[in-house]
Order: sequence, then C-alpha cells, then structure tokens
Amino acid sequence: MSNERPDAGRARRVTIFDVAAASGVSRGTISRYLNGSGYVSEGARLAIKDAVEEVGYVPNTAARSLATRQTKNIAFVVHESHNMFYNDPNLGGMLTAANRVLSEADFQLVILILDTEQTLSRIAGHLRGGYVDGAILVSVRAEDPLLRIVQELGLPAAMAGRPAGASSIPWVDVDNVEAARGICARLVGTGRKRIAMIEGPEAMRAARERLAGFTSALGADFDANLVIPTPDWGHEAGFAAMRELLRRDPDIDGVFAACDALAIGAMDALREAGKSVPCDVGVVGFDDSLWAKRAFPGLSTVRQPVEEMGAIMASLVLRQLKGEDLRHAHEIVPTSIVWRDSA
Amino acid sequence: MSNERPDAGRARRVTIFDVAAASGVSRGTISRYLNGSGYVSEGARLAIKDAVEEVGYVPNTAARSLATRQTKNIAFVVHESHNMFYNDPNLGGMLTAANRVLSEADFQLVILILDTEQTLSRIAGHLRGGYVDGAILVSVRAEDPLLRIVQELGLPAAMAGRPAGASSIPWVDVDNVEAARGICARLVGTGRKRIAMIEGPEAMRAARERLAGFTSALGADFDANLVIPTPDWGHEAGFAAMRELLRRDPDIDGVFAACDALAIGAMDALREAGKSVPCDVGVVGFDDSLWAKRAFPGLSTVRQPVEEMGAIMASLVLRQLKGEDLRHAHEIVPTSIVWRDSA
Repeated sequence: MSNERPDAGRARRVTIFDVAAASGVSRGTISRYLNGSGYVSEGARLAIKDAVEEVGYVPNTAARSLATRQTKNIAFVVHESHNMFYNDPNLGGMLTAANRVLSEADFQLVILILDTEQTLSRIAGHLRGGYVDGAILVSVRAEDPLLRIVQELGLPAAMAGRPAGASSIPWVDVDNVEAARGICARLVGTGRKRIAMIEGPEAMRAARERLAGFTSALGADFDANLVIPTPDWGHEAGFAAMRELLRRDPDIDGVFAACDALAIGAMDALREAGKSVPCDVGVVGFDDSLWAKRAFPGLSTVRQPVEEMGAIMASLVLRQLKGEDLRHAHEIVPTSIVWRDSA
Repeated sequence: MSNERPDAGRARRVTIFDVAAASGVSRGTISRYLNGSGYVSEGARLAIKDAVEEVGYVPNTAARSLATRQTKNIAFVVHESHNMFYNDPNLGGMLTAANRVLSEADFQLVILILDTEQTLSRIAGHLRGGYVDGAILVSVRAEDPLLRIVQELGLPAAMAGRPAGASSIPWVDVDNVEAARGICARLVGTGRKRIAMIEGPEAMRAARERLAGFTSALGADFDANLVIPTPDWGHEAGFAAMRELLRRDPDIDGVFAACDALAIGAMDALREAGKSVPCDVGVVGFDDSLWAKRAFPGLSTVRQPVEEMGAIMASLVLRQLKGEDLRHAHEIVPTSIVWRDSA
C-alpha cells in the first residue's frame, strides 16, 4: 500500500505555517488560539483571525484530535449484515433519535456496519484509532468481541439490549420476556390450542428472551417441537420456518414470530398452504414495522419505543463524555401491543 | 466544551514512549518501523516487535494518518433525512455493494447522513479533517454545497446521479429519461388517456429527468395540470398528491409515480376513492423496491442496477487513490422494466 496520496487535481494543504507567515504570530500562539487553550493577546487574536481568512486555513482535525483528544464523532456500530441492516425496522428510529440528540450537542454520528470478521478488525482499528469519542452499539451478539474491544478501550459507550456476559457498558432494553408473554397470552386467550413460535437467531438474546415469554404464556400447552430458530430475522427465513412447522403439525392454529418480517414470511407460507389468517391461524409479530402496517391482514405486534431507546443511548454516551461514571447503568423502556387483524 | 476526556474507567493509553522504554530503540527508529519508511536494522526490528507485543501498543491512527495521510476510511455520504435514508430502496443495495468492493481492498465504509444545515458544516469538517481518504456521495441535490466542498478538498470521490452544474466528480447514473419514457409508453400503449405524474422533489435531478421521459412518452396528450411535485419521496406524499390529482381530474386513468413509495401512496388514495387498480387506473413506479413486490396488486416499475452502481462508485474512488485522474469520468448503467399487475 502506498503511503502517499496522489496529487492529481489536489491543492497543497494550507497549514499553520502559512498562518504564521501571514500573521507574524508564532505557531505556539496560533495553536493556543485554535485550541482555545491558554493566553492569546487581543492583538494576536485579530492578526491570526485575519491571516486564517486570508490564507484559507482549515484546521486539520486529525492533528487537532491529537492535541485535544476530541473528534466530535460518535460511532453507531450495527452488528448486522448490510442487508439486514437495511431491513431492520428498529434501526431507523434509533438512528434518527440518536442523531437528533448528538446533533444538538454538535456531535457527528458515524455509522459503521459490522458484518464480517474482517470488518470486526477494521472497526476495532477505527475505535482504537482515535477517530471517535464514543460508540453506540446495536444488534450486539451474545458473545460479541465488539463488547470486549470497547471495554478494553474504555470508550464511552452505550448499547441496545442487555449484555449477555460480564460487561459494564450501560444499556437500554425492553422487557422482551414480558412483552412476548403479553402478546402470546392473547393467542392463548382467544382459544388457540396448537401455538408455534418462529424464534429468530438463537445467538441473539432478544430471541431467547421472547422464547421465554412464549413458554411462560403457553404453560402446559408448550410444545418444544413447535419452536423453530432461524438463521436471521428475514422474511424468507420466516417463510421456510412456517413451511417446516406445517410439515410437523398441519393443525397449528397460532404463530408467534419473534419479528414482523418473520411473521409476514409465515403469513405468506400459510397462504400458500391454503390457510386463512386469522380464521385458521392467528399470527402475531414483534416490532411494529412497516411490514406489520402494510400486511394484509394487518399484523398484530409489539411496538418497541425505538426513538426513545436511540435518544437514551446517545445521552448515556454524552454524559460519559462529560465525566459521569455510568458503568452498569441501564434503563428498561415500556413496550405496547398494537392489535390489528391477524390475531 | 471540555478538551479533556474523562479518565473514569479508562486505562492509560500505551504510547510509543513505552515501546521505546521496553525495546531500548529510539522513537525515531520505532516511528520509521511503524510507518514502514526508511531504514531499520534487523536487530531493531525484532526488539521493536517484541516490545510492541509486551506493552500492548496499538498505533494511534490519528497520529499515523498525519504521517501517512491514509486513514483507510471512505465516507458514504447520504444527503437525505434519516427517515428517508432508511426508506430509500436504492441505498441498501448501493451500500452493500460499495462496502463489498471497499472491504476487499481493506477500506472501511463510514456512513454519514446529511440532513440539516448544521450537519453539512459538521460533515464538511469531517471530510476536511483527515478522517477519510475519499467519499461516495448519494442523493446529491441539484445545487449541493457538498459537491463544492468535496471538489475544493480535491478528495477522491464518486457520486450517484450526474451533477447538475460544473463538477468534475466522476459519477454513475441510469438513463432516467429513457427509463421513464419506456414505462410510460406502456401506459399510453394500453389505451390510458388521462395520465398523471407524481413527480417527486423538484430539486432532485432524477425527478426532473423522469418528468422529461414522461412528457416525451405522452406527446400531445401531456397535460401540465396533471403533474404534481412532492416535498419528498415518501408514501404519504404520494397519497396526498394522488388525492389532489383526483380533485383536479376524477377521470385520470393512468399514473406514473417517480418512485415506488409515491406509487403505493397513490394506490392507497385510489383505493380510498373507490378506484380499482389496474381496472380503473393503471399505476407504475420506479425503483423495484420491497414496496413494489409486496403491493397488492404488485407494482409495475423500473429496476435500477443499484448494486452495480454502488460497486462502480467504490471502484472509482479506489482508482483515484491509486493515482488515476478520473475527473469528469462517468458511466451510465442500464435499467429494466419489471411488469407486475398494477398496469
């Protein structure tokens, strides 16, 4: 790899030397002025200000971050494939709200997508390299090396979902167990007898917690044979899982899918099998995404307050940057159930 | 703003001084070793290598980028509100493909969303500050200050969509005029007489080009009163525009919406007005998004090769980093029409 950038079409960068030459003020004084640290006389201030304009100087932030150790960038690290990143209904709301809070504090949100081993090492380099002052972590895995890296760096951080192992990173989460129990209790309460679950990826804590809520709601009617994990949270995985469930038991009359995309995939498979929703089979999901609203029939689902979660994570990071010790801090935000026509 | 990071819970950063102390090698030599520049004896190499492992030294990339002027980060700047960013069906494919190409070359994609004036100045600072080696620009506006900033910096860059004014930034685009003309010709060819267009935001070149294609396909049947621009590309804007179009002319029998979300909004408004699609009104869109596939009836639309566009933009940036002069380079990629049941 070359250590030099090509010069084609690029102007020479104006440096602090040019400002010194134009102002007649020493570089040390200019540096104090630019960093807002230490005494600079009024005369020098004016001379520097004029010279900065005259030569068109723009501070080099990489150099600056060495001195001030602040970049004003906060990473938003999403541990998902790009494809799932784009289809996750919760990320948009979290992103929007986190960005709003950070933006008000004049911080720039920098989105990094962690989708391969190779990316992990690059993102670790990014976090270590002084490019960001803090990090918001979403879709974190149960044993996620990202958590260890962030903790070792002591980087101010916050995450969505509670950590599985030993981690001191503050987090915000919903009560997945209770939310799942609530929506599944309704399936039970409306007389469904053979209720299946499409679980989502087993490595995700949220999937396991929603399964716990499902198990709790069904009690003695729980049948482990009617629970199928999926490789991801996508529509196609839901379709395949529903086909397999119908093969195992054609009399299934209720389905809880751990996210809306899985639920819509299941509804497509039920339709293919000639089953009517909700007459033959009641279907409920989780997320209240666009999928749920635009499904036919509309999908009953759990709404997570994703904007609130995004805003809380941003605040947790900003508060650490101001010096607060928030290790092990956490917040549980309430969910609600949105009843439509699918169950 | 504080110039200091809080120390709570953070380990002291291991520096090159620690490596010097542990190895007995001078900092100048260690620096040459780390940057791969200049002579370092075999003995010194081994001593440094051992010391780096022993003290757990990780090079500070901000310091490094001052010396090498390469960060291995490429910005992916999206000029959209976060909300639209998340709903744009083309961005996911472009992101995925650009990331794949950059990742293979060991570059990290860094997504920056440009949604306010304040963000513009922050993103300008990010691009100027030495955090990235290049930039991919999408959803660029007709008179976008971002273009000027990137050009002034001489930053290796590429953009989706051709620039409106004087710009030397290489770009990749579809032939919007021809694609729109093609799909609208079908509305005309199937006997539709009163064909309206939901144009999209007038400030976007793509919207104006698709209008040109629409105008060309309709010829003498074109009625400027049946063209409505929208504030954004969203579903609700399409719904409102269709309502207004029906108010202007209840006999509209064909609609071209400049994107799928607008088209689905229009279909909802038509349904509300008691009109059947495609029997009463034929509707066509643009993008071939998830919306188009899951609409009922399925939406006929134009498919853009977004993965190809993302990969081309990434390659254009990488080639500039290798020294190629690609000013004014561009590529037009072919679209196709996906016929479903809406027209």
